[in-house]
Parts: sequence; structure tokens; C-alpha cells
Amino acid sequence: MSEVKILLTENEMPEKWYNVMADMPNPPKPPLHPGTGQPIGPEDLSAIFPMELIKQEVTRERWIEIPDEVQDIYRLWRPSPLYRARRLEKALDTPAKIYYKNEGVSPAGSHKLNTAVAQAYYNKQQGIMRLSTETGAGQWGIALSQACNFFGMECRVFMVKVSYNQKPYRRTMMEIFGSSVLPSPSTETKFGRQALADDPDTPGSLGIAISEAVEIAAQRDDTNYALGSVLNHVVLHQTVIGLEAREQMAKAGDYPDVVIGCCGGGSNFSGIAFPFFYDKQTDGAKVRLVGVEPSACPTLTRGKFAYDFGDTAGLTPLVNMYTLGAGFMPPGIHSGGLRYHGDSPLLSQLVHDGFIEAVALDQTSVFEGAKLFARSEGIVPAPESSHAIQCAINEALAAKEAGESRTILVNLSGHGLLDMPSYEAYLTGRLEDYPLPEDILAKSLQSLPQVG
Amino acid sequence: MSEVKILLTENEMPEKWYNVMADMPNPPKPPLHPGTGQPIGPEDLSAIFPMELIKQEVTRERWIEIPDEVQDIYRLWRPSPLYRARRLEKALDTPAKIYYKNEGVSPAGSHKLNTAVAQAYYNKQQGIMRLSTETGAGQWGIALSQACNFFGMECRVFMVKVSYNQKPYRRTMMEIFGSSVLPSPSTETKFGRQALADDPDTPGSLGIAISEAVEIAAQRDDTNYALGSVLNHVVLHQTVIGLEAREQMAKAGDYPDVVIGCCGGGSNFSGIAFPFFYDKQTDGAKVRLVGVEPSACPTLTRGKFAYDFGDTAGLTPLVNMYTLGAGFMPPGIHSGGLRYHGDSPLLSQLVHDGFIEAVALDQTSVFEGAKLFARSEGIVPAPESSHAIQCAINEALAAKEAGESRTILVNLSGHGLLDMPSYEAYLTGRLEDYPLPEDILAKSLQSLPQVG
Repeated sequence: MSEVKILLTENEMPEKWYNVMADMPNPPKPPLHPGTGQPIGPEDLSAIFPMELIKQEVTRERWIEIPDEVQDIYRLWRPSPLYRARRLEKALDTPAKIYYKNEGVSPAGSHKLNTAVAQAYYNKQQGIMRLSTETGAGQWGIALSQACNFFGMECRVFMVKVSYNQKPYRRTMMEIFGSSVLPSPSTETKFGRQALADDPDTPGSLGIAISEAVEIAAQRDDTNYALGSVLNHVVLHQTVIGLEAREQMAKAGDYPDVVIGCCGGGSNFSGIAFPFFYDKQTDGAKVRLVGVEPSACPTLTRGKFAYDFGDTAGLTPLVNMYTLGAGFMPPGIHSGGLRYHGDSPLLSQLVHDGFIEAVALDQTSVFEGAKLFARSEGIVPAPESSHAIQCAINEALAAKEAGESRTILVNLSGHGLLDMPSYEAYLTGRLEDYPLPEDILAKSLQSLPQVG
Repeated sequence: MSEVKILLTENEMPEKWYNVMADMPNPPKPPLHPGTGQPIGPEDLSAIFPMELIKQEVTRERWIEIPDEVQDIYRLWRPSPLYRARRLEKALDTPAKIYYKNEGVSPAGSHKLNTAVAQAYYNKQQGIMRLSTETGAGQWGIALSQACNFFGMECRVFMVKVSYNQKPYRRTMMEIFGSSVLPSPSTETKFGRQALADDPDTPGSLGIAISEAVEIAAQRDDTNYALGSVLNHVVLHQTVIGLEAREQMAKAGDYPDVVIGCCGGGSNFSGIAFPFFYDKQTDGAKVRLVGVEPSACPTLTRGKFAYDFGDTAGLTPLVNMYTLGAGFMPPGIHSGGLRYHGDSPLLSQLVHDGFIEAVALDQTSVFEGAKLFARSEGIVPAPESSHAIQCAINEALAAKEAGESRTILVNLSGHGLLDMPSYEAYLTGRLEDYPLPEDILAKSLQSLPQVG
């Protein structure tokens, strides 16, 4: 059998991130202040973000230098390997070629570390000693914990209480790297104390945890806030994935017909897809870009393209994006990372403008794909990433049906080694699908704020 | 900062395993039949092992071809990366250079897959449709499950009952790859039923699980048995680690002064060390080879070099090795993979003849090293592998003390992502050390069989 891994040396690692805003025909509309409804300025964000990240949030410059200090840490696992999934192709008996980029090799186990390292670096540069963040299942919390550890910064993680109790292993991972992890709502913040007073037995929510993390960041000069997806600068940092993949495809003498990634807030998919969008815009490349989301939380496929809040409490700026409504409560699917009501404004704009496709899949079919992938390639994928894998399998089967070749590139955003309870539920037939009922969606969308 | 990863391409992967028996001044004494006390022949083993593995168990040929089919699967993760631990060196402020070979990148998360794939292949070649094995914490069971899956074979794993209940995640991993996992003692075997009749609430033991796995392998023509360490053919397959590491060190323009690995049954340490033993014998290389074991189970440092049984029940052949006595019950340390009363006969002979050093470490110091390694290099090591890491740290600090450079090569045999409960125990101060009392050791050694 021929080569299965396409590797780059550390010297071939990209030295710049790609900023998609330089090439968008319609730049995204500006974020609005939640109180005034007016476009926000840098000063509105400076209480919780460092100036370099605020600049990256708005710049139209095409290429942004990756600082040496960030590259030094990237080298611990980057460039990540690109695999030709020969065994999966054989199992599918397809003429299609399937390549996957393995972001699960990062110490954090997912792509999240690409932006965590950059965010910690820029904060440290500005003299910030501590970052606060929220985490649901814990993937983002682990990544930011590791990044803060590398730069000698403190990290405080508000972990949704139900996850804090159900997923003690993810919490331990954060603590190994020195973070302090608090169940949210906590007694550390005014908002948390209020939530506890309202309901001492609340399981917590991502919305509450965000509010707590932002509250302590806004209060203390030495503390800032960090977010793991959605924002422009987060997406920017993830483009290192696609830039590497493009080089690796060239090494393999190939170019994708379709690029696939799963979508929660949109950062891993944007990370692999945007450098190929650049090819579309500058070279007329014919590549299709496909984002995959759960049918239980179908933001891009069934949401509304409108201004909405990023959090449940309505404290964040209003951004123009696909949304199911900030009050939407997704069912408890096993892909915690995809349970978000909105999506990256950059990605949303490109979907709206027809440059990017989106599909939604049921979780039972997603776990079928995950099992086939594991048994073929050996790697157990995260449930989130398995959405992208199942979509790639569907593309490969469509190619077989059509009797044509097709080159598929898929982002394996993380491994599933800490997701065994989800696999156990699947293997014992305890998984359910939750297609979103039309009336619930309609009701949720009624609550969208009237602005813009 | 300079390069941290030294990579080989798939074309640079070794095509042969190294058989240390070709170069040992004193070959190990022959295994003896447990009943007669006479040397066993191939026919005694053929009920449970395929002929190719029996041949590998006794051959003096120096180089053994790695079959193409095995190489094809190795390519899913091999050659594994060699890292220069620059951040760890900096944290220790040492003039020493530390390199680590990362076997944790295998789909199974450890070096175990190197031999599991080979064993499954040779069994399949001989028409065997099913393998049975035992597993304690589950690492070996996962590796054999994956290997059987790749060759379309069934795999039946007898998992020590207490682990079966305590470590459901490892069990789920095996089930993802299609294995049937039974708590041992089970009602599937005569020996298991007997054990359950004796004590319905028994937590089980590795000794009982081995007996069950051997029993069903001996009974059925289409079923064989597989073991994850100790035996000569297992050690042989692991030499791919050291052969790659030697090439990678050469690429880095370096050669180790000391090679370090942790020792349970001895296979990962032998795997990295034996190719350097070859250099000692053929080129007069001055490299030191150091095996590291837990002070709670100090086989090489305090055991007796004598014939003993491989299992508790006394059903396996008698082999000449360092042993604490087959009846020795190690305390419940967090390195399940190092809780074995004996050690590889090949490794034992080389320790006895003075070619290899051994040291024993307390688990609290081992977890200190693990934390420092994780915070420096990002990777959370398995508790077993952390023994080797702490030893490397001690070597690096000794070099600093002596004001001299020293080049250290250490085998990171697996990652610790499924060992979070152990890390939690460490972080919350609940770890204890268990130095082995002299009288308990003396009593255990009294029970050694009188043979040889």
C-alpha cells in the first residue's frame, strides 16, 4: 500500500494567518452595542480583549504574521499530519479519494489550541496576567489552560455545573495545567450569586458561564476574557489548518473538489475552508466548501440571517449571523461543541452569499460514520468531527454512485478519547435523533432583537 | 526556537525487527514445561500460538522481516515522532539534551499496537479466526482489539472484573473495534466458573483472566491466545521503536549517552533499548541502558533471577527471569501496566549479565515528573511512561550537578488521556508510596518453584 501520511517539516509551517475579510465581496456588517444598538468601537472591547486581538477583529489586511513565540508553541504538534484515508476508501469501495487533516494530534486533542495559544500570547504581551473563560464539555477549557500554562499566566475556567459534575476527567486535564476550574454558576461573581439565589439547584448553562467569565474580566485590570470560536480573530488563527492542508495536498499532487468541516461556532470549518475560498476568489478554483451541523441545532441550514446576541443573557454585542435565536435551547446531543444557537459572522456571510454550502445530519448517522472511520483508520473521532466524516462518506458514496472520481478533504477537528460515554450510548442503542420541529424554531426566531 | 520534532517518512520505516538473541553472550535458559520440568518444544505451544510466532520465540537470526501487511498498518502512525524536549530542558535549566520517542501517537495510545498487529497477522496467516486475551487496565486489550479489527478477526477479551467495572471507557474503546469484552472471572470457562463458585464476589485477577483466555484458546482450533509483553516475540516486535529512534537521533546529528524506558513486562523498554545494545556489541557504543520500575513492584532491582511461572495459577511454562514470586500481589499503584511479578527473560538475562541497569522509583515522584513534563511539553504521559520520564529528569539534573552535557533518550510509551482518575488522586494529595517491605519480599520469594 502506498503512503498514507503527508507530512510537512516545521520549516514548512505557515508564518502568516489568512484573513478572509480581505477577499469577501460583502464584508460582514458591524457588531452593534447591546445597549445603544450603534456600531461598537475598539474602546467598547478593550475592557476584556487586548488591542492586538481587537485589531485582528476588524482589519482587512490579507496576511497576518504569526508571532515567533506562537510558532514556537505550534511546533509542539504542528504542522499536523494530512492522511490519505486509503482504508476508509477501500471499505466504501469508492473511486473517490479521501484526505483528512488530523487536528486531534494537538496536546489539547483538538484544533482549539491554535487560537488559545495566540490569544494567550497577545494578552501576555499587553501585560495581562490572567484569562477567564467559560467551557461546556471542556475542550476549549483544556486548550486555554494549556496555552496560559505555556505563557505563565493564570487561567480561570467557569465550567457549566452539570458538565463539571459529569465530566470530571476534562476538569482534571485543566487542573494538570494549573487552571482553577469553578462550577458555574459560582459564588465568585455577582451574576453567579444571582443565578444561585434564583435556583440553588440549577445545572448551569453556557450563557450563565459566559456572563460570569466576562464579569470578572471586566472588573479586573489584570484579567481579560477569551472566547473559543465565533469571533473573527478566532477564525483567523484557525486558518493555519487550511494553509497547511493546501501545501500538503500539493505535495500529494492533488487538489480537493470539496472541503468539509463540522460547524458549531464555525472556527474549525472556517480554518480549513477559508484558504480554499482564497483560491476560489483569486484563481477561480472550483472547490466546494461544505459546513456540517447537527440536525438538532441547524443554524446554517434553517436559522435566520440576522442580528442577534452571542449569549443568552443579552450582554454581548449584537452580531449579524445565522441564528436560531439566542434563547434557543438545543437538545442534549452528544456533540456538545456543536450546540450553539449562532455561527461565525464571517462564515454566515459567505454562506448567505452562496460561497459555502451547509448540510445538517442526524447524530445516529454521524456515529455510524464514526464507527466506520475508527475501524478503517484506527482513530476514534470526536462526535463533533464525526459530522464532517459522515458528510465525507456521503460524498464518497455519491461519487461511487455517479461512477466518477472526487477528491475530498475533511477536517478531523479532534479525537474522541474523552467521549467514550457517547460511544457507549451509541453501541448500546441509546442514541436518539432530534430533528428540530418547525413550530419550536418559529417561536425561537420570534424573539430576535429588532435592530440593524 | 529550533526544531522540536524529528520525523521519518514512511519510506524510512524499518523493514526488519532486531532479534537481540543473535548478540547475547549468554542466551536465556529454555522455558520448562510446568508439569514435567523439562524444556518445552514447539508442539507444546502450538495449541495456543501460531508457528511463525513460536519460531520467533526461539530463533537466533539477527534480523526478521516485517511482513508487508504489518508495515501497511504500521503506516497509520509509524514512524512515530522523536521530540527534542527543549521546553523541559529549559524548565530544568540543564545542559543535558533530552529526546523522547512518542509511542502515544498510535491509535491504541501506546506501543502495545506494534506487537498486537504482528500477532494478529501471523495468526490470521495460519487460518486462526479468533484471538483471546486478558487485560487489566485495558491498554493491551485495546491494542489487540484494534489489530484483530484490521485483519477481520474476532477478539475476546477477559477483563479483570474490578477494572471492567471501574474503567468502562477502556471497555467501550475495545467494543468500538468490535471485541467482545467479558468480566473475569466469567461463566464462559471452566476455570472462571470455578473461581465464581469459590467466591461469587471476587474482584478477579490477571492470573485468573490469563487462565480463562488460555483455556478457550486451547479448546478451540480456530482460536489462539495472545500476550502483550514478556515473551521473546513480543519484545522482538517492539524493536521497531529503537530502530526508528536510532535513525532519528542520527538525523538530529546526535547519539544517546543513556536510553531509558519503564519496565512492567519489559517490552517497551526492550523495544527502544535493544537496538542500542546491538551498537554496544558491534560498535562498542558507550550508551547506558536504564529500565525503570515502581518501587512498589521492584522486579529487576530486588527480585531473584530464577525460574518461575508467568501466571499466578502456575499453568504457564516456567521461565528464567527476575521475579518477585508468582504469588506476589503488588499494591494498587496507578501504573497498572507495571504491576507484574516477573519480567522479560531476555531483558532479565541482560540485566543479570550487567549490560542493562535498573532503577526503582516511588509513584509520588513519578507524578511530579509527569506534571512537569505535561506543563513543559504539553503531552500528558501515562503513569507507566512517567517512570521513564522522571528517571530522565533525574539524569538531566545529575548532568547539571556535574556541569556536563548528557544526551538522554526516553521512551514515552503511551499517553495518559484515559488516566485522569490517577492524576486527580495526585493533584488532590491522595497518592501514597508503597516501598516493598523486606519481609514480604522474602516470604514471596520462598514460594519459588525448585527447578532448573
